[in-house]
Amino acid sequence: MALQRPKGTQDHLPDGSPKLRLDVSARAFRHVTDTAALVLERAGAAFMATPLFEEAELVRRGVGGSTDIVRKEMFMVYYFGDHGGYVLRPEGTAGMVRAFLENGLKQLPSPFKVWTHGPMFRAENVQQGRLRQFHQVDYEVLGSADALVDAEAIWLMVQVVQKLGLTGVQVKLGSIGDPEDRDAYNAYLRGLFAPHVERLSDDSKDRLERNPMRILDSKSKSDQELISELAVRPMLDFLGTESAAHFEAVRRYLDAWKVAYEVDPSIVRGLDYYRRTAWELHHAHIGAKSALGGGGRYDDLAKELGGQETPGIGWAFGVERILIAMRNEGIEIPAAAGPVVYIAALDAEYVPLAAQIALGLRSGLRADFGYKHQKPGNAFREGERRGAAYTALIGSDEAAAGTVALKNMRTGEQVSVGVEELTSLLGSSSVE
Amino acid sequence: MALQRPKGTQDHLPDGSPKLRLDVSARAFRHVTDTAALVLERAGAAFMATPLFEEAELVRRGVGGSTDIVRKEMFMVYYFGDHGGYVLRPEGTAGMVRAFLENGLKQLPSPFKVWTHGPMFRAENVQQGRLRQFHQVDYEVLGSADALVDAEAIWLMVQVVQKLGLTGVQVKLGSIGDPEDRDAYNAYLRGLFAPHVERLSDDSKDRLERNPMRILDSKSKSDQELISELAVRPMLDFLGTESAAHFEAVRRYLDAWKVAYEVDPSIVRGLDYYRRTAWELHHAHIGAKSALGGGGRYDDLAKELGGQETPGIGWAFGVERILIAMRNEGIEIPAAAGPVVYIAALDAEYVPLAAQIALGLRSGLRADFGYKHQKPGNAFREGERRGAAYTALIGSDEAAAGTVALKNMRTGEQVSVGVEELTSLLGSSSVE
Repeated sequence: MALQRPKGTQDHLPDGSPKLRLDVSARAFRHVTDTAALVLERAGAAFMATPLFEEAELVRRGVGGSTDIVRKEMFMVYYFGDHGGYVLRPEGTAGMVRAFLENGLKQLPSPFKVWTHGPMFRAENVQQGRLRQFHQVDYEVLGSADALVDAEAIWLMVQVVQKLGLTGVQVKLGSIGDPEDRDAYNAYLRGLFAPHVERLSDDSKDRLERNPMRILDSKSKSDQELISELAVRPMLDFLGTESAAHFEAVRRYLDAWKVAYEVDPSIVRGLDYYRRTAWELHHAHIGAKSALGGGGRYDDLAKELGGQETPGIGWAFGVERILIAMRNEGIEIPAAAGPVVYIAALDAEYVPLAAQIALGLRSGLRADFGYKHQKPGNAFREGERRGAAYTALIGSDEAAAGTVALKNMRTGEQVSVGVEELTSLLGSSSVE
Repeated sequence: MALQRPKGTQDHLPDGSPKLRLDVSARAFRHVTDTAALVLERAGAAFMATPLFEEAELVRRGVGGSTDIVRKEMFMVYYFGDHGGYVLRPEGTAGMVRAFLENGLKQLPSPFKVWTHGPMFRAENVQQGRLRQFHQVDYEVLGSADALVDAEAIWLMVQVVQKLGLTGVQVKLGSIGDPEDRDAYNAYLRGLFAPHVERLSDDSKDRLERNPMRILDSKSKSDQELISELAVRPMLDFLGTESAAHFEAVRRYLDAWKVAYEVDPSIVRGLDYYRRTAWELHHAHIGAKSALGGGGRYDDLAKELGGQETPGIGWAFGVERILIAMRNEGIEIPAAAGPVVYIAALDAEYVPLAAQIALGLRSGLRADFGYKHQKPGNAFREGERRGAAYTALIGSDEAAAGTVALKNMRTGEQVSVGVEELTSLLGSSSVE
């Protein structure tokens, strides 16, 4: 049997592939990242890219040692030599902040708005249809704690998905407060759960000591039953004066810009470095638990990574999830252009001539040719199959006269055209 | 100390970064891949992407178990679970052929022309300035053994680097024949080297038994001395009738298309699945040993991977090497557009208004704004620093009148413009 790709990975396929779906279409992936580029670069965000693997310590500090991502889902990278401490990046933010610090990017106009896209890696349970290599579009702003930056980040995330044509999108907005607010909330949660410790899952028993807020995120059914029995008060009730004012300011901006959102007091965030504003983007058609993406403020991350304190905020969405949502809404992406002309030789001896004419045309337009000689009927069928605007035939008459027999595939009209005139004739009909 | 990126990796940085060079410029990387997209897609190549890691067995079979890549330079990938057999892809071809077979792509028009780009990984010696994550543009054609396909592949590789502006590029063309030609050549080499086995490096003693041709590729100085003493005849002398005819046909096409090349009888290829046509692209300015890239025919690869026999050919070039060559030739890439307008508030209370106007403009053009209020002089300096075509100021007069004070940054002309008119006025001056 032929070798297969690793579990939980996908090939991004060309148009016409038998197994094509929107979420494995190479053209659809490009459409999403091109759309993100358009929206984000109009807003002044620069593109930056970081390596696909990083020091494991960066991920541990950036994502948080108690998260499932670090404890169970890291892809470790080793090589024949002296180093065993690399990890495939499970998310983009830690690397982007590391790159900001390491490359002295605070010298650029502040706040620094930046975006990236690319693969992320988590050894997730593939039985649940989760991908182990998935793709994100990621936007980060470093250097400002202003609520205006938060609101603009949310606005931009919504702009990208709207530009992609998605309508069934919901913004769920919350705040996880400042560290002292969370201390107060954690104290409240400890007091609330302590009498019921024997009913908590093993993971949550552990969380009760270290980070009780993360119990609320638990995937355990019995934990979730206990949570609803206890009528747990939300984090939002515990915001301090400053973080409450920040949250109100973000909401005022979103209201002014007519960005629809609902306040969701249950938003917790799985990653340890978040503070204040946190949100998720949901879609009606991909299931209640499946966010398209999310974002939040992470003012403590840069210091956690050993750098100078730098306020920051960012978001990411999953490209595959966006594409599944688009598919479910029936959104079509722009069709790929076929060649302007497909050139076929009617005899083997004219194949080199067909090739040479096509090569010459390619300096200005899409031109393809047949590698073997064909009968006229087969040539026209092949031109049609490739979506060519014109099919050109070369037989002995044409070769002798320096012409091609050119058929307009839409109108059916057929004319004899000098090879020298092809560029100008086809160039004017090209949409490139 | 702040955490740093792994040895042998680079961040791709935005314009204005203090450590910017062409070979770490995110914009330059995009320029190379955009240029490759333009040239290759005009020629009918589709884009496809494969996962960043593959089964180690795929790489072993695809690249060859006796190569340095497999023996010393593989980045192995493990996770907390049951699997230890993944590897970060060291090159693109094996994965592309695997994807062709696994996804039934032989149903697409044949030959199947496809391209990709992305990171590749080898645990190379970083002391020699080699990268461990580097980037390639990769073109493959599956389904035809015709010499026309080989010549077109070489032509396209040259087209891409020429479109990038490189002039100092040399094509070195050879042929490594068919398997039976190589058997004859290996027999010749065994006979030649056997009397001198004690002078060979340990690696080459090993190669003498398994694959004597690879001795010619040896990096050992003493091996290379022995090779020149023995006046080793080139592989090209051992081509059989069919492979010699194929080589001549490729040369005839390249001559007809005026593609400059030199025949290099020393080309061997480090990868085991190549046959017949093989070539390298060299550049005068990046050192004799440093090819920009190379390519070759690999008709036996698909079968080696457990699939149906499928002739194939492909090439890849290193994006970083291309960028170093471009830097050495002094080639500039097109400048990034700054914002069409930078909008600044003169008082804190008008910052939200400046933001709102910018957000509205972004549906058609690049518009940025100041997150803090600024004095006019600072605002103009900031607009200039960002490369804005216009800077707009909003003070109390403007806010009351629903206008902005708009300065053309090139001419210095300053006018009062109604906010409603901004879109049409700036839109017509936008180059987007």
